Order: sequence, then C-alpha cells, then structure tokens
Amino acid sequence: MFWSESFIYTLKEAPEAAESVSHKLMLRAGLIRMLVAGVYSYLPLGFKVLKNIENIVREEMDKTGACEILLAALQPEELWIKSGRDEQMGETMIRFTDRKGRKLCLGPTHEEVITELVKNQVRSYRELPVILYQIQTKYRDELRPRFGLMRACEFIMKDAYSFDIDEASLDKNYKKMFIAYEKIFKRCGLSFISTKADCGVMGGDESCEFMVEALSGEDKVIYCSDCNFAQASTETKKCPNCKKDLKGITVIEIGHIFKLGTKYSKSLEANFTDADGTIKPMIMGCYGIGVSRLIAAIIEQNYDKDGIIWPREISPYDVLIIPLNMAHRQTKEVSGELYKNLSAKFNVLLDDRDERAGIKFKDADLIGVPLKVVIGEKGLENGKIEIVKRRDNSVLLVDVDKAMAAIKDIIK
Amino acid sequence: MFWSESFIYTLKEAPEAAESVSHKLMLRAGLIRMLVAGVYSYLPLGFKVLKNIENIVREEMDKTGACEILLAALQPEELWIKSGRDEQMGETMIRFTDRKGRKLCLGPTHEEVITELVKNQVRSYRELPVILYQIQTKYRDELRPRFGLMRACEFIMKDAYSFDIDEASLDKNYKKMFIAYEKIFKRCGLSFISTKADCGVMGGDESCEFMVEALSGEDKVIYCSDCNFAQASTETKKCPNCKKDLKGITVIEIGHIFKLGTKYSKSLEANFTDADGTIKPMIMGCYGIGVSRLIAAIIEQNYDKDGIIWPREISPYDVLIIPLNMAHRQTKEVSGELYKNLSAKFNVLLDDRDERAGIKFKDADLIGVPLKVVIGEKGLENGKIEIVKRRDNSVLLVDVDKAMAAIKDIIK
Repeated sequence: MFWSESFIYTLKEAPEAAESVSHKLMLRAGLIRMLVAGVYSYLPLGFKVLKNIENIVREEMDKTGACEILLAALQPEELWIKSGRDEQMGETMIRFTDRKGRKLCLGPTHEEVITELVKNQVRSYRELPVILYQIQTKYRDELRPRFGLMRACEFIMKDAYSFDIDEASLDKNYKKMFIAYEKIFKRCGLSFISTKADCGVMGGDESCEFMVEALSGEDKVIYCSDCNFAQASTETKKCPNCKKDLKGITVIEIGHIFKLGTKYSKSLEANFTDADGTIKPMIMGCYGIGVSRLIAAIIEQNYDKDGIIWPREISPYDVLIIPLNMAHRQTKEVSGELYKNLSAKFNVLLDDRDERAGIKFKDADLIGVPLKVVIGEKGLENGKIEIVKRRDNSVLLVDVDKAMAAIKDIIK
Repeated sequence: MFWSESFIYTLKEAPEAAESVSHKLMLRAGLIRMLVAGVYSYLPLGFKVLKNIENIVREEMDKTGACEILLAALQPEELWIKSGRDEQMGETMIRFTDRKGRKLCLGPTHEEVITELVKNQVRSYRELPVILYQIQTKYRDELRPRFGLMRACEFIMKDAYSFDIDEASLDKNYKKMFIAYEKIFKRCGLSFISTKADCGVMGGDESCEFMVEALSGEDKVIYCSDCNFAQASTETKKCPNCKKDLKGITVIEIGHIFKLGTKYSKSLEANFTDADGTIKPMIMGCYGIGVSRLIAAIIEQNYDKDGIIWPREISPYDVLIIPLNMAHRQTKEVSGELYKNLSAKFNVLLDDRDERAGIKFKDADLIGVPLKVVIGEKGLENGKIEIVKRRDNSVLLVDVDKAMAAIKDIIK
C-alpha cells in the first residue's frame, strides 16, 4: 500500500484522557479512535493488527481440533436466569426489552448459549469430546472504562468451550488449550506468566490465568522471577517452589482457562447417554483470550520512547519503504521497483508522501513496522540503500540490486 | 477435516417454522441454529460459508483501493439526533441507557459514525478521495423476523463509504463500486439483476439495487429478461428499452449503492478545505452488501430436491471423500491416502463415519460440496474410484493412482 492511500493518521500528542502507554500509542499511531468512552473504531492500521492476532489465535485453535463457529451477541435473558448467573451479572450486562416484549441482553460471555446449542445437538458419548470456539464481540456496561481497549464496553474475545464425557477427558482438553495458549502468546511476542506455570501439569487445578506484566495492569500478583511462580494472593512472601523472595507486580490478564465441570450442563440440562446407557451431564471447560486487549498488552511490552515496535507476526506491514525525497527521480524509481518486487511476497507500505524526511522517520518509528528501508539521494550515488531494524536501529547498508535478497533473508 | 470431528449435524426434516427453501436447507444442512426468532448461531459449515463470502467481498473491496476498518456496534444516540435520522429509525433501532446514563443504540447502519470519524481526521482536499469499508454486525428490532438469515435481528453487512471533493469524483467511486459488486456477485455464483443494468453507465443516478430472483423474495420488481431492465415501480408494462413485455418477479435485495451527496456531511459538519481555500462539505456515497443474507440468496439459486449445490468459491469444502465402508481395509487406506494428498492443496472433508452408504450419500447431497469422491470395495477391485459432480451427478470413473490429477484438473 501507499501511505497516501492508507488512511493513516498519526498524532504528535495523545489526548489527555489517555493514561496508559498502550492507549496513548494506539491513538498516536492511528490504530484506533474513540467514539464514546469505552467504545472504539479500528482504523486501517489497528484493523490489520487485530486481524493478525485473530489469525494466530485461529491457527492455533484449529490445530487443537477445535471447530470455529459464530454465536450471536443478542441473547435471551431467560438463559441467564436458568443458569443462575442473571443476578450475578447485574448491571454489567446490557439488557433491553425489544418491541415484541422479549427480554434480551448483549452477551458478556457465551457459556449459556453454547451449552444450549450443544445440548440440542449431542446425544451420545460417541459424539464427544467436542471443542467449539469463536472470535466474537462481547459487551459490558463498564462503570469505569479505562486504558482504551484494555477495559472497554465493546471488545473482541476468543472464547472456546469443551464438552467431555468425564474428568480425564476434560483434563486432556484443558492441557491441549494450555499448550495452545502458550504458543499463541509466544507468537504474539509476549513475555507472559501464568498462575500455573509452576506446576508444569495442570491436573486437578480448576483454572489458570495468563498475564503480562505492565505498569497499567489492573491486577496484582506476586511473582517469582526465578521459577515463574505467580499467584493472585499476596499473603505469601517467599516462593513455595524455590524459596526466593516474591515480587509484587501489576499485570494485564490476557487469557484464562477454566474447568467448569457440570456447572452449566446441570443447570441447563445438557446431558448425554454414556456407553453404559446412563444419562450424565457433560463435563465442560471454557477458555478465553482477550483478543482486542492483546493489542494493548503487546504494545505495553513492545515500545520505546519513539513509538511501537511490532513483533513480526503482529505488525500491520512487514516492511516500510521510506523514500527520503519523492521528487528525486532515481529515489522514486528505486523505491517503486523495490515496492513492486517486495509486494509479491510481503505486506509492504511505501511512504509516498511529499513530507520532510524527519516527519517520515518520526511516523515510521511511531507506527512500529519492524523493518524500514531508507532510500535517499546520497546513498543512491554510491548505489546503496539502508535497511534499518526498528527494534535496535541497527543499519545494514546494501547494494540496490542486493536489497531484495537481504530483506528476504532478514524477514525469512 | 474428518466428518466425525467437524460438528456437522444434519436434519431429515426442517422445523415447521422454516418457510423458505434456503432457511429449510440451512437448518437441515446444519449451517445455522436458531437461538431466538431472528437470532442465529453459525455452526462450523455455516461459518465456513460465511468466511468464504467475506473473503470474496474483502478481496474485491481491497482491489478498489478501499481501506478496511472496524466500527463499533454501540453508538451514541446523539449522532442520530444530529443527522436527523433518530425519529425515522424509530423502534427499529435497538436503544438503551447505560448505567452512567448514556443513551446508546446498536447500529443498524454506520453513516453517522463514519462521517464523524472522517470529519475528525480529514482536513484538506489533498486527503480525498477516501473509501472506507467494514464487514460488521448490524442490529434491527425486526417486528417480523423471517426466512432465517434473510430478515434477522442480528446480521452481517459489508458497508463502504466514500468521501469526495466533488460530484465527478463521487461518480468515479460509485462506478468503481458498481463494477466491484458485479464481480462479487458473480464469484458468489449468483444470477443477479440490478435496477441500473439497463443504462450501462450510472451517471446522474442516485442509487442502484442489486437483487436475485427468488420465490421467497420480499420485494417485487418488474423485469425484462431480454435486456435485464428492472424497476421497483410496477406501473410500466412494456420494457422502455426493448418494448418487450415485462415480468413481475419477487426478489431478494443483496446489495445497494447510493450517492448520498452532502446529506450527512452537512448535518454532521464534515467539511474539507478545497484547493481554492473555501470550506466545503464532503460529497459522500455509501455501498452495502448483505453478507449473511447472501448465504440465503446463494442457496435460493443453487439447490435441488436433495439439498444445497454450493458454487465452488462458496463451498465449505472443495472435495468430500466418501468411503462406502470404513471397515473395509483397502477402502480406508485409499481414502486416507487421497485425503492426505488432496489436503495439501484443497479443503477436504472425509466422511469417516461408521454409517450406511445411503446415509452418507444423502448427507453429502444435503451439505452440497461440489465434488464427491466415492471409494468402495467393488470399484477398488478394478482399481477404480468415482468422482461425482454434485451439480449434475455426472460420474467420472478413474484409476486410483490417477485420482489426484483428475480432481486437480476438475477443480483447477
């Protein structure tokens, strides 16, 4: 894409209301814009990042054998009364009565709906296990929406649900999800911790939280940097594993996996006939990832004073070509040629704007594309262009005709 | 994928409430399930079809140079009061007051939000034209939801919006969209008509509707099968172009493009500074496609008494392998081998169920994968397997070792 056609709008300063680093950078780099407090529009750069994260989540979920579906945001309130969570959700759940008098709500989560769906399809143990997942928009009437996409009223989650015949089978799916989550967060370029990282296996445990350390985190845990032990309770001072001093840190929750057992299958009567002919409630698990929140978490761990530094798989573009002066004929030609060649294999952004080099460099660092290719008059006099890594600003000076190969080699 | 792991649930009979062919087939083939009237869950087969349609729409939109974004469903009611559409939307728009007292609604469309967004970014004529689009969920409090995804309370649309400096530039974008729409609907395997098909160019016209003929269509038009003239008004009896008799037909609206002019930019003050320094309202166009509704429209035009016949680009799978008897060792081996080889290049479904051949054939025809590969004991005795086209049931008997090449040749 050409910058001039990409609807990229950067800001010198973030609006005062933006508190966290990620919120500020998302606004400044033109990823999102606020519509009303807690409600955001994704601009093209933000949308591309969102899709990249979704694709990683989708790939790793598909590898576990989970099937992708899509549930509605509209839900009948009745299901929540049946499950007993109606009162618990209270005012956090957005509710309304439609003009036919139906009491509906906007799903803050989908345990009830998925249980009802599976209950109506699955009859026999032969059809289990089942894991279904979706990447879908959730709603919460947040009293204090904060930090941009971190705590928003409308947000995107991946929620998966497993249905098993017994605890042993649930254990298998739970572990499968744990491993998938580790892969997802690694691919997202995150250094994450989990409340179950200490025990290696997760047998018998009811839930596990995945978190990233961040100054703007709203949760607190105690953490052992030696063995990665983490726990929400702050009573303990020494690590139960290696007896080292524990550190109190603030974290962002990015994922959570739960063994639900029969909580929902019992209240909503989601039963199956087992091999011996007896009728039993399905054993459930649920597995969430805050997809839109991940954008914020990734930025909190990948930035410097100049802007965002995207991990390769997350970046809206693989390469940013920066012609220093589009009015210089050879600069324009070499840039255009390289753009054409690179575009066949990569997502390339070409800063074709008639702006000063200083502005282009500032914007480049702000939007955080991991690889910059700088093309200027002086370099071209010696037949050279610069390949610059955003993360460490390391510069590779290469011959024009070797640029393609060099870039391919770096990106791989 | 293996059928047994794909959460495919077919029905012998559609529930009585399902009226239209497409609604019945979507339920029977296990594409969707109803949660409450007008609200549906997409099961894996339905979700795959939805994604295929979305990808076609996305590809053709991207080719026009439009930039993809994602707007929120939650909107402030205030914007609708400003645009003057608040009363017009009336009870069709879902509204509620959140616990902070904010008056919000669920967007039935996004002209107001996009106008506000672009107004806050674009300042100068140099930044125009802009075309933005999204594929996003819309909400309507339908008094009479009908025909499954055809008239639902929660549905998915592609909505694009153009912003131009003058009418001539709007004309260009409008034509660009018209051509993109033709490509999209063709790739969806639809025989469609448009209210502007008669005039070739669309200069001066304010809007154009794209429709497909269907018995369950809720709109009526008069139509000339000779020159494709179509018009909503039923006054005329003869075609104004070729003087032939016009036919009254029922249609499903699948797309609509509008020249909005300054309707929204004036009321919401979305202005730009023109080359001569004067401040002018942006000239807008909007372009919608009913993405989830397209699933229904495609089925209405692509089915027979046995089930759905998916157009190739829409089908949830490219090939369905049907081993007649999984207990027969060679059948299982040949099926597994072919599955492995085909999967490297295509989306393949293997019916690994321990079911009678009759049931497998019936389900195959119902879910409508365009190419079936039938592998059975008798054929294998002669070293042959059958490649069957779903649309015309034509059979190609091929040697086992030539099956890959033959299938590749057919799908291309």
